[in-house]
Amino acid sequence: MKHENQTKRKAVVLLSGGLDSATTLAIARDQGFQCYALSIDYGQRHYAELNAAQKVAQSLGSHAHQTIKVDLTLFGGSALTDQSIEVPILEESPNIPVTYVPARNTIMLSLALAWAETLDCQDIFVGVNAIDYSGYPDCRAEYIQAFENMANLATKAGIEGRRLTIHAPLILLSKKEIIHMGLALGVDYGLTVSCYQADKTGRACGGCDSCRIRKRGFKAANITDPTAYKTN
Amino acid sequence: MKHENQTKRKAVVLLSGGLDSATTLAIARDQGFQCYALSIDYGQRHYAELNAAQKVAQSLGSHAHQTIKVDLTLFGGSALTDQSIEVPILEESPNIPVTYVPARNTIMLSLALAWAETLDCQDIFVGVNAIDYSGYPDCRAEYIQAFENMANLATKAGIEGRRLTIHAPLILLSKKEIIHMGLALGVDYGLTVSCYQADKTGRACGGCDSCRIRKRGFKAANITDPTAYKTN
Repeated sequence: MKHENQTKRKAVVLLSGGLDSATTLAIARDQGFQCYALSIDYGQRHYAELNAAQKVAQSLGSHAHQTIKVDLTLFGGSALTDQSIEVPILEESPNIPVTYVPARNTIMLSLALAWAETLDCQDIFVGVNAIDYSGYPDCRAEYIQAFENMANLATKAGIEGRRLTIHAPLILLSKKEIIHMGLALGVDYGLTVSCYQADKTGRACGGCDSCRIRKRGFKAANITDPTAYKTN
Repeated sequence: MKHENQTKRKAVVLLSGGLDSATTLAIARDQGFQCYALSIDYGQRHYAELNAAQKVAQSLGSHAHQTIKVDLTLFGGSALTDQSIEVPILEESPNIPVTYVPARNTIMLSLALAWAETLDCQDIFVGVNAIDYSGYPDCRAEYIQAFENMANLATKAGIEGRRLTIHAPLILLSKKEIIHMGLALGVDYGLTVSCYQADKTGRACGGCDSCRIRKRGFKAANITDPTAYKTN
C-alpha cells in the first residue's frame, strides 16, 4: 500500500487561474509532487481568474489551495490594477504593454517562497513563458534564475543547504505545445480564464493581448477553443 | 530659489517603525532624496510598530507614506505571525530564532520594488543590519546584492538601462554607530518601536531579542534609552 502523503515531495504552485498556470499545476502533479496551489488577489481587473483558480485547483487534485490578498491598486501603474488605464484591444506593440504590473511576478514568487519555507518545501512552480507572451520582463529565464539565486540566500533552508528550486516548465514552450501538454495531463481549459478583462462569470473579451495569444494557441494546436467569449 | 520637488530624486524607503528603519529614512533624506516611506502590515504581533512608522515618517518629513497589507498569518511559521508560538525572552541562540518570518524581507523589498516602478524611481532603501541583529538570513549583504541583481532583470526600468539600486546603509554598522548617526540626523528614537511584543501603546517588553539588542545599543552609545518599557 502506498502512503502517498508521506512519500511525496511538496511543491508550492502559483496558480492564477489562466491557461499556463493550470498546465504548470498539472505538470507538477505529474512529476509526483504534492501540490500547494497559491493564488494572489492583487486587486486585478479580471477578478474572475481567482474563481477559475479555485475550480482548477480542485479539478487537478491540489492538496491545498490558498488565496492571499495584497492590494496593488494602492500603487497602480498598470491597466490591470488601475481602472482609469484601459486594456488595449487588437493592438500589437513592440514595447512592454500597459497591462504589465510592476514587480508582479517578484511579489508572487516572494509569497510562494514564504509559504514554501513554512511548509519546509524546496520546490516552487511558476507558469511563466517567454515565447507566446506579452513581453513582460519578469517572464524570462534569466529573471527566474536570478530569483532562485536570491531565494537561496534569503531563506533558512537555502543557507542550511536545502537548495530551493524555481521550476518554470513552460518557459521555452509555444502556446501550442503548452496546450498539447496540458490536454495530455488532463487539464480542462474550459475552467481557465486568461482574459485581462473577463466579466464576473469569466467570459472573455476576445480582443486583448492575453485573449489573442490564447486564441492563436488553440488554433495552432488544432484544438477547439473551449473559451466562453462575451460576444458569443 | 530651489525647486525641491522638481530636482530631488525619489527613493522608496522601507519603514517598519523601528530604530534601524527610522535611521535609514533620515539617511535617505540627508542624501537628498525625496522619500516615499512604505510600511507593511503583515499581521505582525507588534502592530504598534505601524503607528510608530506613521509618527516617524511625519517627523522626518517623508514626502509620502503608505501602509500596504499582506496577511502573512495565513502561512504562519514565525512567533511574529503565529500567536501560538511564543516570543523567546532572555534567551540567546546560535540558530535562526523563531521570530524569523519566512521571506519577510523579500516580500517587503518586492512591494517596495512595485512602488518604485510606478513612481519611476530607481532607489530603494532598507534598514537591514548584519552586525547587531537576530541572525536572519535576509539581513546579509550577499542577499541584498542578489535581490538587486534580480530586481534589475525583473523590471521595465532595469531592462531599459535605468539601473535600480538597493541601498542598505546600515548593513555593516554596529547598533551604537547607527544610534549616533541617527541622532546626528535628528531622529527621535522615542517615537520608534523595536519590541517584538510591544503593547498597543508601543511599550516594550525589555527582554526579547530585539529589545536586548536595542538596549545594548543605547548603553554602548552612552545615550539615555528613550524607550518606554512595560515594567517601568
